[in-house]
Amino acid sequence: MNPDQLKILLQAVKGGDTPVDEALEQLRHFPSQDVGCAQVDHHRELRQGMPEVIFGEGKTALQIAQIMRAMTDKGSNVLVTRLDSVKAGEICIQFPTAVHYEEARCLTLEQKSVEQNCRGTILVVSAGTSDLPVAAEALITARFLGNRADHIYDVGVAGIHRLLARREQLCAASVLIVVAGMEGALPSVVGGLVDKPVIAVPTSIGYGAAFGGIAALLGMLNSCAAGVTVVNIDNGFGAACAANLINRM
Amino acid sequence: MNPDQLKILLQAVKGGDTPVDEALEQLRHFPSQDVGCAQVDHHRELRQGMPEVIFGEGKTALQIAQIMRAMTDKGSNVLVTRLDSVKAGEICIQFPTAVHYEEARCLTLEQKSVEQNCRGTILVVSAGTSDLPVAAEALITARFLGNRADHIYDVGVAGIHRLLARREQLCAASVLIVVAGMEGALPSVVGGLVDKPVIAVPTSIGYGAAFGGIAALLGMLNSCAAGVTVVNIDNGFGAACAANLINRM
Amino acid sequence: MNPDQLKILLQAVKGGDTPVDEALEQLRHFPSQDVGCAQVDHHRELRQGMPEVIFGEGKTALQIAQIMRAMTDKGSNVLVTRLDSVKAGEICIQFPTAVHYEEARCLTLEQKSVEQNCRGTILVVSAGTSDLPVAAEALITARFLGNRADHIYDVGVAGIHRLLARREQLCAASVLIVVAGMEGALPSVVGGLVDKPVIAVPTSIGYGAAFGGIAALLGMLNSCAAGVTVVNIDNGFGAACAANLINRM
Amino acid sequence: MNPDQLKILLQAVKGGDTPVDEALEQLRHFPSQDVGCAQVDHHRELRQGMPEVIFGEGKTALQIAQIMRAMTDKGSNVLVTRLDSVKAGEICIQFPTAVHYEEARCLTLEQKSVEQNCRGTILVVSAGTSDLPVAAEALITARFLGNRADHIYDVGVAGIHRLLARREQLCAASVLIVVAGMEGALPSVVGGLVDKPVIAVPTSIGYGAAFGGIAALLGMLNSCAAGVTVVNIDNGFGAACAANLINRM
Amino acid sequence: MNPDQLKILLQAVKGGDTPVDEALEQLRHFPSQDVGCAQVDHHRELRQGMPEVIFGEGKTALQIAQIMRAMTDKGSNVLVTRLDSVKAGEICIQFPTAVHYEEARCLTLEQKSVEQNCRGTILVVSAGTSDLPVAAEALITARFLGNRADHIYDVGVAGIHRLLARREQLCAASVLIVVAGMEGALPSVVGGLVDKPVIAVPTSIGYGAAFGGIAALLGMLNSCAAGVTVVNIDNGFGAACAANLINRM
Amino acid sequence: MNPDQLKILLQAVKGGDTPVDEALEQLRHFPSQDVGCAQVDHHRELRQGMPEVIFGEGKTALQIAQIMRAMTDKGSNVLVTRLDSVKAGEICIQFPTAVHYEEARCLTLEQKSVEQNCRGTILVVSAGTSDLPVAAEALITARFLGNRADHIYDVGVAGIHRLLARREQLCAASVLIVVAGMEGALPSVVGGLVDKPVIAVPTSIGYGAAFGGIAALLGMLNSCAAGVTVVNIDNGFGAACAANLINRM
Amino acid sequence: MNPDQLKILLQAVKGGDTPVDEALEQLRHFPSQDVGCAQVDHHRELRQGMPEVIFGEGKTALQIAQIMRAMTDKGSNVLVTRLDSVKAGEICIQFPTAVHYEEARCLTLEQKSVEQNCRGTILVVSAGTSDLPVAAEALITARFLGNRADHIYDVGVAGIHRLLARREQLCAASVLIVVAGMEGALPSVVGGLVDKPVIAVPTSIGYGAAFGGIAALLGMLNSCAAGVTVVNIDNGFGAACAANLINRM
Amino acid sequence: MNPDQLKILLQAVKGGDTPVDEALEQLRHFPSQDVGCAQVDHHRELRQGMPEVIFGEGKTALQIAQIMRAMTDKGSNVLVTRLDSVKAGEICIQFPTAVHYEEARCLTLEQKSVEQNCRGTILVVSAGTSDLPVAAEALITARFLGNRADHIYDVGVAGIHRLLARREQLCAASVLIVVAGMEGALPSVVGGLVDKPVIAVPTSIGYGAAFGGIAALLGMLNSCAAGVTVVNIDNGFGAACAANLINRM
Repeated sequence: MNPDQLKILLQAVKGGDTPVDEALEQLRHFPSQDVGCAQVDHHRELRQGMPEVIFGEGKTALQIAQIMRAMTDKGSNVLVTRLDSVKAGEICIQFPTAVHYEEARCLTLEQKSVEQNCRGTILVVSAGTSDLPVAAEALITARFLGNRADHIYDVGVAGIHRLLARREQLCAASVLIVVAGMEGALPSVVGGLVDKPVIAVPTSIGYGAAFGGIAALLGMLNSCAAGVTVVNIDNGFGAACAANLINRM
Repeated sequence: MNPDQLKILLQAVKGGDTPVDEALEQLRHFPSQDVGCAQVDHHRELRQGMPEVIFGEGKTALQIAQIMRAMTDKGSNVLVTRLDSVKAGEICIQFPTAVHYEEARCLTLEQKSVEQNCRGTILVVSAGTSDLPVAAEALITARFLGNRADHIYDVGVAGIHRLLARREQLCAASVLIVVAGMEGALPSVVGGLVDKPVIAVPTSIGYGAAFGGIAALLGMLNSCAAGVTVVNIDNGFGAACAANLINRM
Repeated sequence: MNPDQLKILLQAVKGGDTPVDEALEQLRHFPSQDVGCAQVDHHRELRQGMPEVIFGEGKTALQIAQIMRAMTDKGSNVLVTRLDSVKAGEICIQFPTAVHYEEARCLTLEQKSVEQNCRGTILVVSAGTSDLPVAAEALITARFLGNRADHIYDVGVAGIHRLLARREQLCAASVLIVVAGMEGALPSVVGGLVDKPVIAVPTSIGYGAAFGGIAALLGMLNSCAAGVTVVNIDNGFGAACAANLINRM
Repeated sequence: MNPDQLKILLQAVKGGDTPVDEALEQLRHFPSQDVGCAQVDHHRELRQGMPEVIFGEGKTALQIAQIMRAMTDKGSNVLVTRLDSVKAGEICIQFPTAVHYEEARCLTLEQKSVEQNCRGTILVVSAGTSDLPVAAEALITARFLGNRADHIYDVGVAGIHRLLARREQLCAASVLIVVAGMEGALPSVVGGLVDKPVIAVPTSIGYGAAFGGIAALLGMLNSCAAGVTVVNIDNGFGAACAANLINRM
Repeated sequence: MNPDQLKILLQAVKGGDTPVDEALEQLRHFPSQDVGCAQVDHHRELRQGMPEVIFGEGKTALQIAQIMRAMTDKGSNVLVTRLDSVKAGEICIQFPTAVHYEEARCLTLEQKSVEQNCRGTILVVSAGTSDLPVAAEALITARFLGNRADHIYDVGVAGIHRLLARREQLCAASVLIVVAGMEGALPSVVGGLVDKPVIAVPTSIGYGAAFGGIAALLGMLNSCAAGVTVVNIDNGFGAACAANLINRM
Repeated sequence: MNPDQLKILLQAVKGGDTPVDEALEQLRHFPSQDVGCAQVDHHRELRQGMPEVIFGEGKTALQIAQIMRAMTDKGSNVLVTRLDSVKAGEICIQFPTAVHYEEARCLTLEQKSVEQNCRGTILVVSAGTSDLPVAAEALITARFLGNRADHIYDVGVAGIHRLLARREQLCAASVLIVVAGMEGALPSVVGGLVDKPVIAVPTSIGYGAAFGGIAALLGMLNSCAAGVTVVNIDNGFGAACAANLINRM
Repeated sequence: MNPDQLKILLQAVKGGDTPVDEALEQLRHFPSQDVGCAQVDHHRELRQGMPEVIFGEGKTALQIAQIMRAMTDKGSNVLVTRLDSVKAGEICIQFPTAVHYEEARCLTLEQKSVEQNCRGTILVVSAGTSDLPVAAEALITARFLGNRADHIYDVGVAGIHRLLARREQLCAASVLIVVAGMEGALPSVVGGLVDKPVIAVPTSIGYGAAFGGIAALLGMLNSCAAGVTVVNIDNGFGAACAANLINRM
Repeated sequence: MNPDQLKILLQAVKGGDTPVDEALEQLRHFPSQDVGCAQVDHHRELRQGMPEVIFGEGKTALQIAQIMRAMTDKGSNVLVTRLDSVKAGEICIQFPTAVHYEEARCLTLEQKSVEQNCRGTILVVSAGTSDLPVAAEALITARFLGNRADHIYDVGVAGIHRLLARREQLCAASVLIVVAGMEGALPSVVGGLVDKPVIAVPTSIGYGAAFGGIAALLGMLNSCAAGVTVVNIDNGFGAACAANLINRM
């Protein structure tokens, strides 16, 4: 139930078109619905500006399917993140219209078309080929939440001319998500070129003293470009959520 | 030199009102002016949407004054952060119109009035009395950059009713900066209550296993509220810069 | 041998009903019995208020079975924790009355019924679906040790209304075990709502900068709610042991 | 306002003895009172079973005095922790009946006598001479909250006979707070001797690889004695709060 | 020194032209033998008091066999540590008289009988069943190097009476190797009971905040029992080498 | 396109032998060529003194093959690092002239013979048998980039005579790459013996408190031999690149 | 056992009524003396082979003096470690025969002459000038405990010839204490040259990534020389205690 | 070799009885001079290509002066690093011709003029004003060792145009030392622009999660620009030593 639907319902109650009992039934699962392993939060969109998203890691395929069923019964679109291929396969059998993005480890099920009501374009910029899965998670999430989203890839700082050649596209975005592993320097350089919010995503790519993304994370937290904010390692999803909140009208 | 001034200059050149040599002189310090210890970047506002700010830590009072002189000569307003009281005293003697905020460890010098051209209000929310200095740095920076900015303080998560009592004010902000030390849980709770971007600032307050802000930083990076982004420990300034970029029209 | 049995035995010796030699035989394995790979401590209940529990990790199925045999020979109930499915299967063949809890990775064998002699209810509260295995370990242990134990699940702090809706149940418990991964903020909020001891259990759930539970652990150690104590990462068993000692009459 | 006072007030309202307006005035500062730098939570005792305590670190003497004034105006007793001698001196001038415990870095101001309504004795056990300040903080807090509290000191594990000689006293306590630095092994040994809850407090005492208490903290979290729970490094106050909640009737 | 030179030297010794002491001096730093992947150091025994031992991890079965062949050709006994079962199987086919100790992950090949010329007994003391493999590595190494070596197991500090019951055996040893995981407190207690050198071996056993042995390692480095020294995590071999040097006459 | 080829092209343009359009076509992929998953940087040699090298980890065999095809189409030699055997097998089927070095996890494809135009010899020195793969990566890279390169192996500091016996060869090198795991002390000793640049490579070999190479990395960063520089853990490739830049004329 | 009981026992020994062996047994675990802030353990020498030593850090001058008085009253020699100059000054006024070693931060008070009854010489070897204070603490402790002790200094591994020039002296020692900061490589080289026990002491000397001795500590724990054991950072005292236990007859 | 022997050797050289090459060989590993607190290594220049340099931290002014005297007596030039102003003042009184560089914390004493016999220019590039002291240490060391050395400062990556404007100067250097704190990204960008060796120096400048230079250090170790090597945090001296070895002819 999104804000518009709620407004219509309440006006119908006020106008007498909908009896209180019926409205109550519709609001029955407020604040949440117990599906045995989880409390599904149908009103998160109302409260937080985006629907609940299922974090697939640490849940069984069965648990994910239960939550999905509860959401699709309410007419919601569904996004599952951190989903490995085996679980995705089991779920796709039960939900034939679901789409599985293997590289991004995401699955979407769109029952109603995604409405685009945002200000501008979210631009995802990634540093190396190995950062593509995280960038893809950000892209798919941003689009699922109703944003226009583009991607520039393989523009690491050791070949700075590749990035400078895209300066125009960088400046045209309304929010930028910058994905990088290793030393995580790309957000600093991008943040110095644009006058828009930059969300930095460290990735766990790298070896040795990259320590699974710690080097990139620290680099981004210490960015000399003021205005860069950071999300968790490999958290393309979180970056897209933040970008969505910024980009909404 | 801000974008409007540049546009006027270029049109004057085009129209013949300003000779090329004179325009050249005005643009002479592009890209930066060498003041002996630093390259002052007069065009950062043009490029990044906010003027250069002087990071006071690790610079002598003399170095800071040199950079301030170069900026005031160009008519810029000046913000110095991380400035201890001794250095601030020396600088205030040379720049009598400068204002020193002791708790926030900031100094401002405003030659021209700050123009307010932003969408909404930046709300700074802080968890404990000890987080006040960092919150103050964020507030002063946000206002210096031309934003309306308010403050809710001492609303830690262990007394959740104090926070819930302010829900209306939380929901009315256009961007929220949430400052917390210790376990750093406040941004998660706030992020679950609003549908606006939340920027989390961990503080170094705490003892023992707080490890100078690491506990709060990790807590915020792992926030279960999607859409929370994080800046460096005690970096109220950085949070305000990011909030400013989001809040600008 | 529990305290009551010991008292009866000693009175029987005093009264002459039990010859010294026979009492000696019964006490023969005091302080412990060597089963080749371990010293089984039959008198831990006497000394520490709960029977010895077998930590299954790092022991072979054969070693576990040897220790179980020594315990069942003395009439004790048995609890094995951290037991993977393969080892559990081998053990269940040898001990057909044993019960294996797969999600909780526990196995129990109850020869005598568990006596409930505790003051109140231990309430296990968990934050996300992924925290269920640790919560389950705590629940099973608490019940094995003779406590009433209930469970509230999926009430993370980013949807604070879900937790507040259960306030009555929270306040009715005599001890609370709060299980959370990611930023580990739930114990702080719960600790601020109740006037009973709260034992916090960080879980290794999360990714990136969760660092296998370190973020949650630090968050809990730095809880702004006074009176929260913490056990090791994923240590639902330890939390239940502490809760049992508090809850006993 | 404690629970009894609230009950009397509400009955007076019900019976008509107290007009609603007057009751409202008395409850006016519910949930909290804004004293400029803090929201004083007068009803914490009602909600959490112990009055608000002022954490002195990171607050100025002036801020502490403001909060103390708001509390004493309501008739509350006051405890300030982490208070250095300079600030304590300034405060004692303003509050002549306050008592300053230098070793424990605490200050108390008792307007009404502390009521003892707890089950048994809280026993503080400390390992070395250097752990005395943290043990003292725990002792003073425990007594301030209305508990009987005793102390055994300098009984480190390298001279195990010193500890064993006190076994009777250990077993007679209803809750034990065990304070240790260096390797932090004392709680494991104590936990193996008693059948009561043990709260472990790591201290920052030690050098080199003690890392300011990390070694002791990790040792305690990994205690092989089931039922030991842990609080933050040097957090004698927190341990006493938890012990108080366990010890209350 | 090549084989021919060695031959001439030895003949000179045989013929009485070169005194034994002088020949010994000449051979003391005789270089090593290149076997393609390693420089086998045949004179380590002469120089360091024990023969070269093959560290099996990170070497292929083929590489290990090459080094073993070079050693057996010189008549040396061979010890291989950190050897998994697959590689051990391949090696045992080539060296039928080799003995594989699966729990200890060691393999020995003794061509000449081990000579016992040490002062006393090395006593290996281990805390839990899970520490057995590391204790076994220490035992086998100590015996391979010509020491008498005994073992006390499952005497963790949470059941201190089990350890105290063995006090006589502890005091009779000439060197003690104390193996423990989790909080690693056992060496402190043992070190307080005996007047002999104690070598502490942290093991990687434990979970959560044990961090693969870091908790035990830090505990041991910070032992309050003076005279405890520490080796690397799981390094039973290293502890036995040190104990051997101490125990030799 | 290497510097010589570019010079010839530009002279041809200047002299009118090559029309601008044709030159443009040849330079078309400047700065980089988009192959779908990567921006291949054909001019890195021009800019950085060595051709682009493909980092195999985190890329699929298909992605690697795409990049290789784009490079071979331009006539470049190809080096792939961090390539596991499965992917190497797939690639070798498509590029039959490619050579796979299993121990070094590298693959080379040389279309034109490697030109040797360097000053002296790069000497790779490694401490233990287990360091061989990293040393091999350095050797193959150094030779691929046109250097003479030799190898001394198994000369750890605990048998210092083995290293001293090779002093002449050490002093004859123009650059030294010193590879070591465990305590990483070899570069300090080597750095004290020679008057040439020493590049230290920590390896992840070791166990327990080696922490995957951190011990060796820290040891090398803190080397008491002035003039030692360090690369990332296991980064034989990076060490060879640096050595190549030093060794070039 | 109180003084009267002790007197009776000793008279019984004197009179021949109690054999010495029996008296020894009775006194072996004689408890300790409470001096208000500590339990002085007069029988540690009997039990652990060396007298109790006062760790000065974290104790006030007054507390140290109390413990010293209790010990001198029993006729014991006294060693205080980690004593800063201010406290040492206060103590020397009260105990005029005490000797203060400023560099070593130690103080000794010898009432009876130290008896030398050890096997050989303890040799302290240190790497740099900055390691001298830790080496001095080891030297003074070793001599206080009745050992012959010598010192070789400034023989770091980057100038290996300085160390090799002392090989004879190294080989003549019965135990070696090797003190080093920075990369901590010296124990590995020394351990490879001698056939005696080597105790490694990391020091906190160094900067940057030395991390207060962590680099040296890890280097020593990972020493490739088998038989090296390690004590805590800067713990020259602990190393000397261990060396004393090894060196005793 | 004692002074007399040295005299005889030199007279033999003078008289032609000993060829220079033979004398050189004899003197190559001449041991060191004992000055009480250090072994001064007069032949380091011969062996390692640069004279011994005195590390001032952790040494007293007296110790430094002793070592300086021993060096000046031999006619050497002297460089002292990490020297605070107090000690520098004391030393300058004794050595009036010494020069103290306060910002760089260095002192030089040049008895003979520094000979410039290097290939090209060492270019020091630093990111922020706060990095100047470390850059200055590198500059002074490089010049002391006989190199031409220049400096570009305040060219951080967030204003990439400032760096690109200096591209010509960057490409003209023979070795580059790149000094940066915070995220440490500058070496990656510089390394991508030049074809010369780049030595990266992380500085401890920054706050919060900069962790005293760890963020910059990790960033540099993980540089995506191949050929970058790294020295310890704040180690401008070490970087200059390495650059000198590279730059020598």
